[in-house]
Amino acid sequence: MDSPLAVTTARPGSALLIRDLLHRARRWAPLETVTYRNLRTLTYAELLARMERLGGLLRDLGVKPGDRVGVLDWDSHRYLELFFAVPMTGAAIHTVNVRLTPEQMAWTIRHANDTVLFVHVDFLPLVRACRDAMPAVRKVVVISDDDVAPAVEDTDGDYESGVANARPVESWPDFDENTVATVFYTTGTTGNPKGVYFSHRQIVLHTLTAGMGLAMYDDPLSLRATDVYMPLTPMFHVHAWGLPFLATALGMRQVYPGKYEPTMLLELLERHRITFSHCVPTILQMLLHHPASKTVNWSRLKLVIGGAALSPGVAREANDHGIRILGGYGMSETCPIIAIAHVKPLDVDADAETKLGTYTRTGFPMPLVEVAIHDANGVELEPGKDHIGELVVRAPWLTAGYLDDPQASENLWRGGWLHTGDIAYLDDDGYIRITDRLKDVIKIGGEWISSLEIEAVLGKHPGVREVAVVGVPDAKWDERPHAEVVLRDDAVGTVTERDLQKHLRVSIDDGSIHKRAILTTIVIAAALPKTSVGKIDKKVLRARLAGG
Amino acid sequence: MDSPLAVTTARPGSALLIRDLLHRARRWAPLETVTYRNLRTLTYAELLARMERLGGLLRDLGVKPGDRVGVLDWDSHRYLELFFAVPMTGAAIHTVNVRLTPEQMAWTIRHANDTVLFVHVDFLPLVRACRDAMPAVRKVVVISDDDVAPAVEDTDGDYESGVANARPVESWPDFDENTVATVFYTTGTTGNPKGVYFSHRQIVLHTLTAGMGLAMYDDPLSLRATDVYMPLTPMFHVHAWGLPFLATALGMRQVYPGKYEPTMLLELLERHRITFSHCVPTILQMLLHHPASKTVNWSRLKLVIGGAALSPGVAREANDHGIRILGGYGMSETCPIIAIAHVKPLDVDADAETKLGTYTRTGFPMPLVEVAIHDANGVELEPGKDHIGELVVRAPWLTAGYLDDPQASENLWRGGWLHTGDIAYLDDDGYIRITDRLKDVIKIGGEWISSLEIEAVLGKHPGVREVAVVGVPDAKWDERPHAEVVLRDDAVGTVTERDLQKHLRVSIDDGSIHKRAILTTIVIAAALPKTSVGKIDKKVLRARLAGG
Repeated sequence: MDSPLAVTTARPGSALLIRDLLHRARRWAPLETVTYRNLRTLTYAELLARMERLGGLLRDLGVKPGDRVGVLDWDSHRYLELFFAVPMTGAAIHTVNVRLTPEQMAWTIRHANDTVLFVHVDFLPLVRACRDAMPAVRKVVVISDDDVAPAVEDTDGDYESGVANARPVESWPDFDENTVATVFYTTGTTGNPKGVYFSHRQIVLHTLTAGMGLAMYDDPLSLRATDVYMPLTPMFHVHAWGLPFLATALGMRQVYPGKYEPTMLLELLERHRITFSHCVPTILQMLLHHPASKTVNWSRLKLVIGGAALSPGVAREANDHGIRILGGYGMSETCPIIAIAHVKPLDVDADAETKLGTYTRTGFPMPLVEVAIHDANGVELEPGKDHIGELVVRAPWLTAGYLDDPQASENLWRGGWLHTGDIAYLDDDGYIRITDRLKDVIKIGGEWISSLEIEAVLGKHPGVREVAVVGVPDAKWDERPHAEVVLRDDAVGTVTERDLQKHLRVSIDDGSIHKRAILTTIVIAAALPKTSVGKIDKKVLRARLAGG
Repeated sequence: MDSPLAVTTARPGSALLIRDLLHRARRWAPLETVTYRNLRTLTYAELLARMERLGGLLRDLGVKPGDRVGVLDWDSHRYLELFFAVPMTGAAIHTVNVRLTPEQMAWTIRHANDTVLFVHVDFLPLVRACRDAMPAVRKVVVISDDDVAPAVEDTDGDYESGVANARPVESWPDFDENTVATVFYTTGTTGNPKGVYFSHRQIVLHTLTAGMGLAMYDDPLSLRATDVYMPLTPMFHVHAWGLPFLATALGMRQVYPGKYEPTMLLELLERHRITFSHCVPTILQMLLHHPASKTVNWSRLKLVIGGAALSPGVAREANDHGIRILGGYGMSETCPIIAIAHVKPLDVDADAETKLGTYTRTGFPMPLVEVAIHDANGVELEPGKDHIGELVVRAPWLTAGYLDDPQASENLWRGGWLHTGDIAYLDDDGYIRITDRLKDVIKIGGEWISSLEIEAVLGKHPGVREVAVVGVPDAKWDERPHAEVVLRDDAVGTVTERDLQKHLRVSIDDGSIHKRAILTTIVIAAALPKTSVGKIDKKVLRARLAGG
C-alpha cells in the first residue's frame, strides 16, 4: 500500500452513537406524541427536553461514564427517556429483569455493579428488602405514577421532581462507539443469570437493519413510519426487541402501556388505534381470549411474534381476527433480531395456506447476518432438512460475551460463531427452521437426536401417561437416550419396558425417527420430578441420572 | 470505570464489510435476475459465482489490498460485479468519470494511481492515446458486449474470458472496515478534479440508512424489495447514488441499461416493467419528451430526483404521466444521500398541490444525519427563511476529505463540519431549502447575497439582453457585487449605467432584494465571456476582474 489513505480518517459525526438517532426525531416530529397509559401524553419536543434534564439529573446523581444504572419500571415514557439518556451520558442502562426472584434480581444488580437505581414504587419493597445485598448502590430514585410522589425513607427523591428541577445537559458527550450502552440478564437452564451487553454501535446497527428489514417487504406486513407503535414485550427484555429505539429515531407515534394488565392493553390498543406491535404467542392468546377482546378492531394491527415459535394454529387464529402476523427470530444474546419470516418476492402469489407456512417458519436472516448449521463437532452442514445441527450466527450486533464470565463467553463464541443453542436446519428456500432447543437433543456419536421425537413416539403408546427422555453420558456414544415413563393406572402391571421397546422399534423401522433411538433405555417410574409450575423437571432428572 | 467491559470486544462478523451485504442475496434470491440491456440475464447465483471468479481474475492480475482498480464501462452487470469484487479483495474501485475530457480522465487515473484498468472498447482509443500519461497502469482488461471480444494490442485479455477462466476465490479476506472501497473524481468550479473516497463501513452504513429512509414512508413513494430497479444515474457517478449496493443486498430484480441511449432506456423501462429508478431532471425531461415516450406505461414508475433541484413544473409533468416522483439531496462528497423529501405523517392529508410543494423541497435529513446552517463566519444560524447561510453536514458516511489534497480536505471539513457549498435555510418544518450554490453568492460584510437575485432584477430591465453578477474583492466589505451587462441593440447608446442603477434601486427600496445590493457596480460591456456550450463563463469573468 503506497497511499496514506488506504484507511479513512474519522471525522465528527462518523461514530455510531445512540445520541445521533435523535437528530431526525428532533426536527421531523416535534409535535408527534408519546403516550403513557391513559395518564400522560408528551410531544417529542417535550420528550427530548426531558431527556436533557434527565441527563442533568444523572450528572447530579454522580453518574459517570462507565457506570451502570439499574432501572425497575413498567413500560413507560420514563423507561424510554432512560433508554436514551443513560447511554448518552456514557453510562450503561441495566434493564433489570423484574420477573426474576427477588434474590436473583438482587444478584443481577450486585453483579452488574449498579450504582444508581430508578425504581417504580411497585418494586420498592423488594429493593429495600435486598438493599444489603447490593452494596454498590449509592442512590435510589423513586418512580411513581402519582403527581406527587410519596416520600420514601432511604431514597433519593422522585423521578418527576428530579427531571423537573435538573439543569439540562448542554450537549451530550462524544465517546467511543464501542462503549457499552445496555446490560441485562438472561436465565439459562443452569446456574446464575448471565449478563449480556450491547454497545452504542450495536444498538445503532440493529436499529438501522431491523428498520430496513421490517420496512422493505409487504407480505405479510411492513413497518411504516406512519404506524402507531406500542410494545407488548417488556422493555426490560432485550430493549423490547429494539423497537423503541427505532420508533423514536423515526419520530413515530408511540404508546407505552405500563404494567401489562389485559384490560388496559386492550383499551390502549383500541383507543390509540395501535397498528404495530410485537409479543410472544402467549400474550397474543391471552389478549384474543379475553372477554374484552371483542371491543378491539384487530384488523388494523400488524404483529411480529417472537420469543417462541409462531404455530400455524396461532397464526390462523390471528388472521381470523384480521391481524397481519409475522414470525421473527432472535434471543437475548442477539440484540435480538436475527431473522424475519417475510415471504419472498417470487412467492407472493402463492396461496394463503402456503404463505402462512412461510410466516410461521423461524425466519429468513436479515441483511448482514451470516448463519450456518454446525454439527456436534463444529463442522458446517449443507442446507436441507436432513442436515440438522446447531444454529450458529455472526452479525455486527451480537453480544461480545457474558458479563464478567470469560469461560461462558468463550463457549458462546467457540470457533468464532455465536452458538444459539437452537437445533435447526436451513430449508431449501434458505429460511431457518428450528426443530429443538439444544437442551432437548441428545448427542449420539457426533449426531444430534431429538429427545422430543422419542417422547412423542413413546407418548403415543396407549399405556403411557407421561414420558421424559434425556441424554445420559455414554463411554462409546458420548450420550444415549434414557426414557422414564409413568404408566396410566390401567396399564400398571400390564405394560412392560419390553413392550415399550417394541413400540419404539416400530417407528425406528419405518424410518419415522432416527435409527439410533434404538439405544434408548426405558424405565417405568412411579412419578417424574416436576417444577413449581408443574412441568417435568428434566434438570432434576438429568442430575439424578448423572449422580446415580 | 471499574469494569474491563466498558468497551466491547469485536467478534467475527462485527466489521462492516461490503462482503457481508451479499449474505442475504446469496440465500434469499438465487433465482432472481440481473439483466444487462437486451443482451444478457444472470441469476443471482450466477452473478455471485461470477464475482468469485472475478476475484480470482483480480488476484491473477496482481491486484493487492490497497491498490486502486479503474473502471471505464457503461452501466452493466460487469460494473456491478466490479462494485463488489474489487473492494472485497481489499483494493479500491476507481469509477472513472467518462464525461471528463481525455486529459482530465488520464489525470484522474494517474492521480488515483490505478494499476489495473477495466475498459469498455468504446473507451479504448482514449486510454491507448493517453497510456503514457498513466505510468502506474500495468494491465488493461478489455470489456466488450461481443461474445468473442476483439483481440487488442497492448491489452491483457478480455473480461468475459478472464472471468470464465479464473479460479474462484475460496473466501473473501477480512480487513479493517475503514479500508477505502471506492474512489471517484468530482469537478469543482476551479482547478483539477478532486478525488473523494468511501470506506467499506461508509458504504454499508449508507446502504442501510438509505434503505430504511427510502422504504419507511409511503408518500409520495416507497422503495420495496419487490421493485424492479434500473439506474438512470451513471454508475461512475457516486455509485449510481448507492442504489446498486442496496438492490443487490436485498436480492432485488435489477436491469442495467448500458450506454444511455433514449430509445434503449425507454424500451427497457417498458419491457422489464421497471418500478424504481433515479436521475437528474434533464434525463427525465429527455425521456418524457422523446417520441417513443408514449410506448411506456409510466404509471408503474417511482422516481427519485437529485443532482439538481426538482422544480414544481417537472414534478407536475411527471405526475401527469403517472410517475410518483420525489426529490432527494446529496453530492459526491456525501456518498451521496443526505436528505429525502418525504411528506411528514402529520401532513399526509394535505392537498395535492401542498404535497407537491413538499416533494420539491430539497429534502429532510435522513436518520443519523446532522445538518446546520452556518453564516459566513461559521456561526450556526437558527431555522427560518430569514436565516440563510451555508449548509453544513455531519453523518457517518461522508468523505473524509479529498484524495491526497490535505489543504482542500481541511477546508471541506473546517470547524468539524462538511461544507456543502450550498446556500440554504431550514424551513419551519425542518426541511432543507437550498437557495443558491455558494459560488453564486457574494459575501458582503459577513452576509451572503445571491448574485442570481441581482441578475434577475437587472435582467427585467427592458434594455438588457444579458447580465452576469459576480463578487469582486473589497477591502471594506470582503466582497461587493459587480454586474456586467450587455444591452439589446435598440438600447445601446440610450440606456446608461446610471439608468440601470436606478432600476436596481427600485427593487432594493421595495424590499424585494437585499439592501446591500446597493453596492453593486454596473458596467455595460460589448459581450460576456462564454463556455464551449454557450453558458456565461463566470470563472473567466472573475479571473479578469481579479487580474484587472
